[in-house]
Amino acid sequence: MQMVNATGERTITDLSIDELRAIDTNEKRTVTTHGIIHNVRDMGDFAFVIIRKIGGLVQCVYTMQDTEEERRILSEENSVRVTGELRAEERAVNGFEIAVENIELLSEPKEELPLSVSKRKLNIALENEIEIRPVTLRNEQRRNVFKLQEGIVRGFRRYLEDNGFTEIFSPKIIAAGAEGGANIFKLDYFGKKAFLAQSPQTYKQTLIPVYERVFEIAPVFRAEKHDTARHLNEYVSVDFEMGFINSFYDVINMETGMIKYCFDYLRENYALVLKKLNCELPVFDTIPCVKFRDAKEMVAKKYSRKIKDPYDLEPEEERLIGELFKEDYNSDFVFVTHYPVKKRPFYAMDDPEDPKYTLSFDLLFRGMEITTGGQRIHDYDEQVKKMIFKGLYPEDFESYLMLHKYGVPPHGGLGMGLERLVMKLLDEKNIRSTSMFPRDTTRLNP
Amino acid sequence: MQMVNATGERTITDLSIDELRAIDTNEKRTVTTHGIIHNVRDMGDFAFVIIRKIGGLVQCVYTMQDTEEERRILSEENSVRVTGELRAEERAVNGFEIAVENIELLSEPKEELPLSVSKRKLNIALENEIEIRPVTLRNEQRRNVFKLQEGIVRGFRRYLEDNGFTEIFSPKIIAAGAEGGANIFKLDYFGKKAFLAQSPQTYKQTLIPVYERVFEIAPVFRAEKHDTARHLNEYVSVDFEMGFINSFYDVINMETGMIKYCFDYLRENYALVLKKLNCELPVFDTIPCVKFRDAKEMVAKKYSRKIKDPYDLEPEEERLIGELFKEDYNSDFVFVTHYPVKKRPFYAMDDPEDPKYTLSFDLLFRGMEITTGGQRIHDYDEQVKKMIFKGLYPEDFESYLMLHKYGVPPHGGLGMGLERLVMKLLDEKNIRSTSMFPRDTTRLNP
Repeated sequence: MQMVNATGERTITDLSIDELRAIDTNEKRTVTTHGIIHNVRDMGDFAFVIIRKIGGLVQCVYTMQDTEEERRILSEENSVRVTGELRAEERAVNGFEIAVENIELLSEPKEELPLSVSKRKLNIALENEIEIRPVTLRNEQRRNVFKLQEGIVRGFRRYLEDNGFTEIFSPKIIAAGAEGGANIFKLDYFGKKAFLAQSPQTYKQTLIPVYERVFEIAPVFRAEKHDTARHLNEYVSVDFEMGFINSFYDVINMETGMIKYCFDYLRENYALVLKKLNCELPVFDTIPCVKFRDAKEMVAKKYSRKIKDPYDLEPEEERLIGELFKEDYNSDFVFVTHYPVKKRPFYAMDDPEDPKYTLSFDLLFRGMEITTGGQRIHDYDEQVKKMIFKGLYPEDFESYLMLHKYGVPPHGGLGMGLERLVMKLLDEKNIRSTSMFPRDTTRLNP
Repeated sequence: MQMVNATGERTITDLSIDELRAIDTNEKRTVTTHGIIHNVRDMGDFAFVIIRKIGGLVQCVYTMQDTEEERRILSEENSVRVTGELRAEERAVNGFEIAVENIELLSEPKEELPLSVSKRKLNIALENEIEIRPVTLRNEQRRNVFKLQEGIVRGFRRYLEDNGFTEIFSPKIIAAGAEGGANIFKLDYFGKKAFLAQSPQTYKQTLIPVYERVFEIAPVFRAEKHDTARHLNEYVSVDFEMGFINSFYDVINMETGMIKYCFDYLRENYALVLKKLNCELPVFDTIPCVKFRDAKEMVAKKYSRKIKDPYDLEPEEERLIGELFKEDYNSDFVFVTHYPVKKRPFYAMDDPEDPKYTLSFDLLFRGMEITTGGQRIHDYDEQVKKMIFKGLYPEDFESYLMLHKYGVPPHGGLGMGLERLVMKLLDEKNIRSTSMFPRDTTRLNP
C-alpha cells in the first residue's frame, strides 16, 4: 500500500517572474520557468519566444534548429517549460531574458486561434469579442481589466476590515424581493416559488444588531428587461451597512474614505496594471454633495433645459450633473442626495423636513450612478406603515421585520455596482467590456 | 442652495472597544460610546448595563434613579449612547467599565424578545432557532460562529493572494451545468432555460490560460433533494484552480499549505473568537494521502466490515476512515485519492495507470468530506471523448471547450464547502448550525 504525506511546502519549483527578477544576471544562472507561448517572432537564426505567466510576459531567445519538432513547439498558446541562462536585456519588458537551452511542450491547442491575442488592440467588435471571451481574455489589455477589478475589491475589503466591518455571506435564493418591482428572477424551489436576490439588503440590515457593521461583495440578480450599455442582469455588488449613524452623511463619508483608500491602494499595488490600461485615477480631497432638487435646477439653468419630471432623474440629466460638477467644481464624483420617496424602496427613511423626499443618495461618477445608499427605517411602526404605503404586505416580510420588532440602532448603507465603477474608470462605453462573462437579456454564454 | 463636502474623515466619534481599551484609566477620562443593551443586572442601588458593540461587550455601571424614563431606557436590545468616566475594573470583561453619567436612547424594540440572547446557552431546538435567527444571532456564541467563518475566509484569501492567485467573479446564472446530474436549479431567463451554477468549475478552468491561478469564494447552488445534517442547497464554496501542475499532488499540497496558513492566521487574529467558541484548531505537520481503494480496505479490515460497493464510499465509511486516521496516524485530516471514474464528473482526468480511477481526491476532516478536487483534462480530444462516455453532448459545451481547443496547460483545482469546515471545527452535528440563513429542501426563510 502506497501512502504519501502532503506537507504544504511548495511543489512547483518553476520560477515566478518576481523570482526571476530578483536574480542577479551577472551570476549567469540557469533557470527553469513555465508559461504559455504568447507570441513568436522569427528573426531567422533565432526567435523571440514571449511567454505569458502570472504577472506578465517573459522574453525567451531560442536558437533555431529548423526541425519538425521545433515548428510544433514554437506555436502560440502552447504551454511550455523553459530552461536556459538568465541574462540582462534592457529592451525586454522585465529587463531580462532567458537564452533557451531546453524547451518542453506540456500541452498544445487543437486548433489555431480565431485571432492573435498578443496584439495590443484586438480589433474586434464587442459583440463578437464576448462570444469568444475564453480566447480574448488572454489578451494583455483584457486580462488587466479584471486585474483592476480584483485590485478594487482588495482595496475596498481592506478598508472595510480596518473599519470594523464583518464580512457576511447572505443567501441568494430568497422568499421575497427587497427592491420591489417586477425585476426579479423567479425559480421553482422544491415546489415553492423562490426568487434570486436583487440585493443583500434585508440580510445586511438583519445583521446590524449582531455585528453593527457588515459588508458583502457578491453577485446580485436583476431581471430588468432593458438592454442598455449600462445594465447587466447579473453583476457584482459591493454592499455595506453600518449602525449607530447620526445621519446618512456618515455613510457618504465612509464611502468617500473607502474610495480614497482604494485608489491609494491601487496606485501602490497595481501601478503596472493602471499604466498598461492607461488609467489615471482621479485625485480628490472631498466629494461635493448636492440635493436632488438642487442638482436638477442647476442642470436646467446651466444647460437651458426644462424640468419635465421633478421626481425623476433621466440618464441624460445624470450625465449633465456629472459634466457640471466636473466643469464648475473639478470633481469626477458627486453625491446627489434626498431622492424622492417614489424613486426609493420601502426601507428608505423619509426626510422629516420634507416627506416627499428620502434620506438617501446616489453617487455619480463621471455622469453615471455607481452607488445607491441611504438611511434605513429602524422603527417598527414606521416600517410597517411605509410598506403599506408602498403597496406591500407586511405579513410577507415577517422574517425581515423581526429586525425592527426586536430592535435595531439607526443605520444606513449602500450598494455599489463594481462593473460600473471599472467601466467609468476605464472610460469604456459599454458595461459588457468590464464584465468577464456578461449576462444580458439575450446572453447566457459563455 | 445647501452644499456639503464629504471628506472621508471619520464622522462617528463614539469610541470603539479598542480605543477604550487603549485609554489609561488613571486619567479618569470621560468617554462616549454606543452599543445595544445586551443585559441589565439590577443590583438595587445600581445596575450593571452590558452593551454589545463591534468586538464584544462593555460593562457600564448605572446609578439607579428609579424613574419611568430610566425603566424605559434600561431594557434589553435598546440602542444607546453612553457617556461616563472610564475606570479600571478587573472583573469586567475588558478590564474596564464606564460609570454612566448620561445615557441616551437611540432606538428601542417594539416587543420583548422571544428569548434572552445574553445567556451563554440559548436552550432552543435548532429548528426553532433558525426560524428566529435575526434574534438568536445576537447571542455571543452565535455571532462568534460567523466571525470564525469570516476569519477562515480572510486567512484563505491572504494565502491565495500570496501565492499568485487572481480573484474572479464568475456568473451564477448559466446555460449548462458542470457537475452533471439532476441536482440543478432551473429558472426562466427571458424565455430561455437557464440554471444556477453548481460550481464555478468551467469558468475557473477557462481562466487558467489567462491568469494561471484563480480563486473564488462565492455561493453555489445544488438542488439535492436529500435532507441530511450535512447538506445545504446553497452554500459558500471556496474554489481554486491552478495551471502548470505536475500532478494533482500539487493541488493537495497547495490546499495543505492553505489550511496551515489559515489556522495560524486564526490563532493570531481570532484568538478570542476561538476561545469563546471553545475551538481548538488541529495542529499538524503533514496530511496523509491514501488511495480510495486502500482506504476502503483499511476500514474493512480494521472494523471487520464487508466492502459492498468497491466504487462508492458510504458516509459511514467516510466516518470510519476519519476515525482510523485519527487513531492510527493521529491525523484529523486525510486525503483520499484516486476516486472511481463513475463517481467523478466529466472534466476529471483518468488515471493512466488504471482508467477505472481518476487523478482526483477528497479531503476528509474528522470523518467528513470537506473538499473535492483533482487534475482536469486539458486535451481537447480526450475531453470530448470523456463527455460522450459520460452521456453528454459536446455541442452543449461549445464555450467551455474553447479552453481545450485553443490550449490550456495541465491544471487542477478544488472546491471546499465552507460551512462544512466550520461545522467540523466546532464539532456541530448539523450543518445548519454553521450556515447563517440555511437553505434546505423546506426552508427559504429567514
